[in-house]
Order: sequence, then structure tokens, then C-alpha cells
Amino acid sequence: MEKLVGACMFGQSGGPSSVINSSAAGVFTEALKQDCITAVYGAAHGIKGVLNEEFYDISKEDMSELMLLKNTPSSALGSVRYKLKAEKVDDTDYKRLLEVFKKYNIRYFFYNGGNDSMDTCNKVSKYMKKSGWECRVMGVPKTIDNDLFGTDHCPGYGSAAKYVATTTMELKLDATVYDTPMITVVEAMGRHAGWLTAASALACAKGLGPDLIYLPEVPFSTDKFLADVDKKMKENNGKCMVVISEGISDENGTLIAEKINENVAKDSFGHAQLGGVGTALANLCKEKFGCKTRAIEFSLMQRCGAHLASKADVEEAFKAGAAAVKYAVNGKTDKMVILKRDTASGKYKCKVGVMDVAKAANTEKKVPLEWIINDGTMLSQDFIDYALPLIQGDSKAPLEDGLPRFAKLKKVFVEKK
Amino acid sequence: MEKLVGACMFGQSGGPSSVINSSAAGVFTEALKQDCITAVYGAAHGIKGVLNEEFYDISKEDMSELMLLKNTPSSALGSVRYKLKAEKVDDTDYKRLLEVFKKYNIRYFFYNGGNDSMDTCNKVSKYMKKSGWECRVMGVPKTIDNDLFGTDHCPGYGSAAKYVATTTMELKLDATVYDTPMITVVEAMGRHAGWLTAASALACAKGLGPDLIYLPEVPFSTDKFLADVDKKMKENNGKCMVVISEGISDENGTLIAEKINENVAKDSFGHAQLGGVGTALANLCKEKFGCKTRAIEFSLMQRCGAHLASKADVEEAFKAGAAAVKYAVNGKTDKMVILKRDTASGKYKCKVGVMDVAKAANTEKKVPLEWIINDGTMLSQDFIDYALPLIQGDSKAPLEDGLPRFAKLKKVFVEKK
Repeated sequence: MEKLVGACMFGQSGGPSSVINSSAAGVFTEALKQDCITAVYGAAHGIKGVLNEEFYDISKEDMSELMLLKNTPSSALGSVRYKLKAEKVDDTDYKRLLEVFKKYNIRYFFYNGGNDSMDTCNKVSKYMKKSGWECRVMGVPKTIDNDLFGTDHCPGYGSAAKYVATTTMELKLDATVYDTPMITVVEAMGRHAGWLTAASALACAKGLGPDLIYLPEVPFSTDKFLADVDKKMKENNGKCMVVISEGISDENGTLIAEKINENVAKDSFGHAQLGGVGTALANLCKEKFGCKTRAIEFSLMQRCGAHLASKADVEEAFKAGAAAVKYAVNGKTDKMVILKRDTASGKYKCKVGVMDVAKAANTEKKVPLEWIINDGTMLSQDFIDYALPLIQGDSKAPLEDGLPRFAKLKKVFVEKK
Repeated sequence: MEKLVGACMFGQSGGPSSVINSSAAGVFTEALKQDCITAVYGAAHGIKGVLNEEFYDISKEDMSELMLLKNTPSSALGSVRYKLKAEKVDDTDYKRLLEVFKKYNIRYFFYNGGNDSMDTCNKVSKYMKKSGWECRVMGVPKTIDNDLFGTDHCPGYGSAAKYVATTTMELKLDATVYDTPMITVVEAMGRHAGWLTAASALACAKGLGPDLIYLPEVPFSTDKFLADVDKKMKENNGKCMVVISEGISDENGTLIAEKINENVAKDSFGHAQLGGVGTALANLCKEKFGCKTRAIEFSLMQRCGAHLASKADVEEAFKAGAAAVKYAVNGKTDKMVILKRDTASGKYKCKVGVMDVAKAANTEKKVPLEWIINDGTMLSQDFIDYALPLIQGDSKAPLEDGLPRFAKLKKVFVEKK
């Protein structure tokens, strides 16, 4: 097969993670090596940067800084939440993308993100094909939510899970330090899939886990919740620690957070901006049990806590980025890179593969119901076996003055043609 | 001088920290070495454990587990918030303490905590002296708030400061990832002293710090705050990151948090239980500027985040504990161990010393006003020079299955006599 010669464009999209830049490092270092790739561009703020002709010339960066990206959290190029309209509704963006792709001879398009980003990949790929512009499009998976379909797990999840599990252990030690009753309600991210909240169960294996875990996969009943807490308070000498997903909903699918606050803001994808449900439940416990309660939100720390990244995750994210380039150069297009678990040797190994990007777009992978045990309040050993390999090892930025030395990119804009 | 022969009692008090157990390790390992110390007891839940005759026989513990205490957060023996009444008001507790001290021949009393704990030390010491029971009493300083008088800094502060600075850097990367306006309000602990909040300025030196920092040392005006944010939004392309202390107050000393919520709960020392002021200010910004805002609370994570402990802090906490034992064995009593900064060599060194515990009790050391610059919104280089040595190096628990292996004490109760 003849190699496709041209420039490559890489963009980061959606909520950042501790390792999305590790995938960028994988894409960049691999793309810079490839003879058929004539220029390596990094889009400022994802697809918006392509539309605005705002992108950086990655060949201008120092290799040492590109490698520091592996341990630099958040999206170094800037991210975006921008949903392309269906082409038949409005094809303005598509025409513009084609114009930019032609102007800069962009023949490779790599996009790093979650479900919505894979939807963007799919739409761009279909339009370019229809327009006769040969361009290989590859999605690179990223989401702390771990809800992407078709891949064993997602880069970003392992590090966020390690943050949740480690911090839960530390909080458990802190929250049980007095001999007085105390209820602690911890809120983790996760709208529809409870993977991140479930990670707190890893702390249980160390004897420092929550007593109760509630995922959005199981309808949440406030009455049952209070009864569960009451039982645990009696069993545990007046102590109870609960971890809940921000997205827990009642049997009708109404968010508990929305029930509490009817004016929940929506982001530009129409997702409700959640938060506060932990505080609301802690207040409810205070009313019911009359004891001290504390609500804790992992907030952005769980997705940008790169100082607590999992080495397995950092390496896999890098590998996924590099693999996207190799697959594309070798002719693959319209695909998303996937991670495959290989346990044939009895030990966890992670391999890469591809799947159709269309299948990944807009499909959410939830925690299997059979892994949620104890009447919807705990995770099974199957979950532990699944998640534990993903949090192994430490990988963080070198220290400079006791603080992390993150990558400092020059970000030299490509001159507009 | 003849050595005083008898048992020693050690207790932990007040809010836990990442390194309070490191001081415990210092006390225990040193006390176990001393011939004149006939038994080493650890009080369950501080002074309450002494009153209830509930304490552990530390000689029953494995040395390897005692050393793991160095990197185990929170208070391994259990903590307490219990204020001894003035003796002339009610001497019941004092009589009981004397009875227990006599029964178990307790000749050394070490108490690890902040201002209130030093007050306990002071009262116990005075009463024992008055009653003719020879007992050497030493306070071991501990507080993430760094507000203890007479010591250059407090064990616990360095690690909490490292958590605040590192996490602020990570949050700054995350909070500036989109090209849309965004205000982030981060709330750190600190009722009257802003040391911990000030630590976020360490991130500024790395180019990833907050734009505005508000400490309780400077009266807070909501109008000025909004004007400050407005100015920064204009300077920084619609982005502003603010770090505030939970204890910020107006010119009349009224807590901003209290103004917002008149029903702020009080802890057993009569301190208001703060929190929520960050959320309130973020909401205020949303109203005023109409842009996306996010409130983040470091909550308990900043005091129990031992995975991000400073090596300097861990070692100094250990040294302070060991020094307390050595000083007491050598005749000192009624003192608190202090840390002294020695920069004679041009490099930071930390030495130990002692001061009268009475002076430490109930006196708060605040951030010097001359270190607070830019119209009360930033810290000076003097502060950076002060704080930077305290966050140097990493020291954390060994990993087991990717998670910290914290100390597991046997906690064998001493049989009641």
C-alpha cells in the first residue's frame, strides 16, 4: 500500500484528564518520526482551532518538553466542548473544515476525547470521504468516566481511579479519628456510569474503604439510603462513610441532584452540570441522625491529580496515541484505538487494537449490574479484579523546588495561509 | 541529675494531619529506647483515653509498623476535641488524671496537637506540680494551620502546604483549558491565620498560581473582591482563579461564611464550623459576571493527603517527637518542642528547641501583614522564601497493589488496674 503523504492535525476535546497529554506525547513523537507526515499540527482548543485556523507547529517544540507532557495534567493545547451539527441541518462547519484541510494538506486527523469527541471524528471522517478528500481519521480514547464502548478501559480512568481509591483510604482514616458519631458523604464524578465511584471499593480491599457505594446504574431511593446508613451506623459504632456518584437518579431517572436543585445548569452539550448532591445527602443525614456530617467533593482534583497518576495509565495513554499514528499511516481510518486486556499469561497485559469510531460515538458503557452487590451498595470481586491492574505504579512529573515540573510548550502558531 | 523513672503517656489531639503519626513514631521509638521509661502508653483519643483508662501498650507493636506511622495520615491512636475546664471551675478531670497517673506511675506526659492541646499540656503540668506528683510534661506541636506561636513553623504545615501548592497548579491547568470565561474559587482551611491559603502562592512562582489570594489577616470586602476579579478577568482573557481562606471576615470581624449562613454550626471548642464561603462567592461571581464559575473545597484532603507529604515535614515531625522524649528525660518539663530555622550556612536547616508551653497555648501566630501585598491579594517573596524549604522532597507510604500500605497497629489495651 502506498503511504498517504501530508500533514497531520491533532486535537484535544472534552474534560481534561491526568493523562490526555500523555496521549498527545504519543501522537506527536510518533508523527514526528513518520516520513509520510509532512507537518505535525496541534489544534488550539480542539475542533474550534481547526475551524479558526489556530494551530501550533509541533516541530518547533523541544523533545524534552514533549516528553514532560506524559506527566502534565489537563489539555496542553486547550480543550473545547463543541458539538458539530448534523450535516443535513447545517453544513457550514464541514465546508470550512474541508477548506482548512485542503489549504494545509491535512491528510491525518487525530482527535482525543470521549463519546462526544468520537462523534466528531465520525462526522468529520464521513464528510471528508463523501467530499473525496482522502484523510485518515483516528479517535484516541480519553475519559476518566471509563464509559467508552468497545475498549476494555479508557486512558484517564486508571489515574482517576487511583486518586479516588487512595484519597478514600486517607479520608477514611481522617473521618474515623474521633470517638463520636460521624457520617461522611463523598461525591465522585460520573453522570450515567459509576466506574469512578466504584473505584472507591479498591480501598475496601485495604480495610479502609467506604461502607456504602451508590452508582447511577442502580435507581437511588433516599429512604433506602437512610436505612442503609442507619444499619451501618449501628454496626460501626456510629461511623459511616458513603461514596456516591454525582449522577445518582431515582427509579424514574430523575437526578437526585435535580430533585434537590431544580435549576441545575446545563453545559453546551445539554448535559446537566451536577454537583451538590453529596452536600444535600449529608444535610439529610444530619437532620435524620442528628450527628456530625461532612460532605466532600473530589471535584476537579480527581481528573487533574497527575501527582497521583497510575503508571499503567500514563504508559497506556502514550501507547494509544502512538498507535493511532501507526494505524493511520498503515491505512486505517474511521477507527478508534482501543485497549485490549490480555491475561493469557496469568498476568495483566494491555494491547492496542481498533474498532469503528461510529460504534464508539454516543454509546455509554456502564458498570455491569452483576458487579454491583449488597443490594446496590458495594462492588464485587469481579470489579476489583478488573480495576486493580489499571492503578498500578506511580508516574509523575519530576520535582523542581518541591513542586511538579510540568511541560512548558512554546506553542508557536502556524502562520495563516 | 538523677533520671526520673516511670511510664510515659502519649496522646494525639485536635484535627489530624499527614504527619501527626510521624511525631508519634518519633515519641514511641525514642521512648522505647530509654531505660528510665518503664512503659510506653498511647492514649486512645487523647486526654479522654487517659481519663477513661483506655490506652495501648506500645511495646506490643512491631517496630516496622511503628516506622510505617511516619507515612500514615490522621491520628492512629484516635483524636479528641476536649477542653479541660479551668481547675477552679471544676477540678473533677484533674483529680481523675492524677489518680490515673499515680495508678500507672506515669512520669512523662507527651501531648501532640495545636493551641488547644498546648493549653491542655499547660493545665495538666500545673496541676501535677501543685499536687506534688513529679511528671515531665512536653507538648509536641502539630497543626496544618501553622498558627502556633514561638516555633518557626509547625509539623503538619509543610505537607498541607505542598498539597495546596501542587493541587493549585493542577487546578490552574484544568481551570484554564477552555477558551471561554471561567472563574474558579478555591477554599482552603484556616480560621484566623492564612498560612495554608498563602501556600497557594508557591504555585505562582511556577507560573501556575491563583490570580488573587485572600487571607483572614486582611478584612474582606465583597465589593473589592468583585472589583479585583473584574480587573483580573479583563487582564487574563476572561479567566480568574481565586484562593480564599474559610475564615475570611469583614472589617467588623464577622465571618463572610457566617454572613451567608447565619446558622453556622459550632464545634465543642466553640469554633464555628466553616465551609461553603467558596461556593457562596462563586455564586456571587456567576450572578455578577454571568460566566461559568466553579467552587472547589480542599476539605479534609489538604490535611490527610499523606501521598503528597513533604519529606522535610515528615522528618521534622519525627524529630520533634523524639526530641520531646529526650528533653523530658533530661529534665525539661512544661515546655513545647519548637522548630528553629538555621540559615547560617546559606541553606535551610531545621533544629529543635523548647519554649514554655504556657506561651504557646491559646496564642495564634498569623501571617505578617507586610508579607501580604498587592492590596491584600498576593504574598510577597518573603513568604515564598519562608515556605519553600518546608515543602521539599517526597515521602510517602510504600505501595501495595498500587495503593499506600499504611501502618496497622495491634492496639493492645493496657489492662485496667
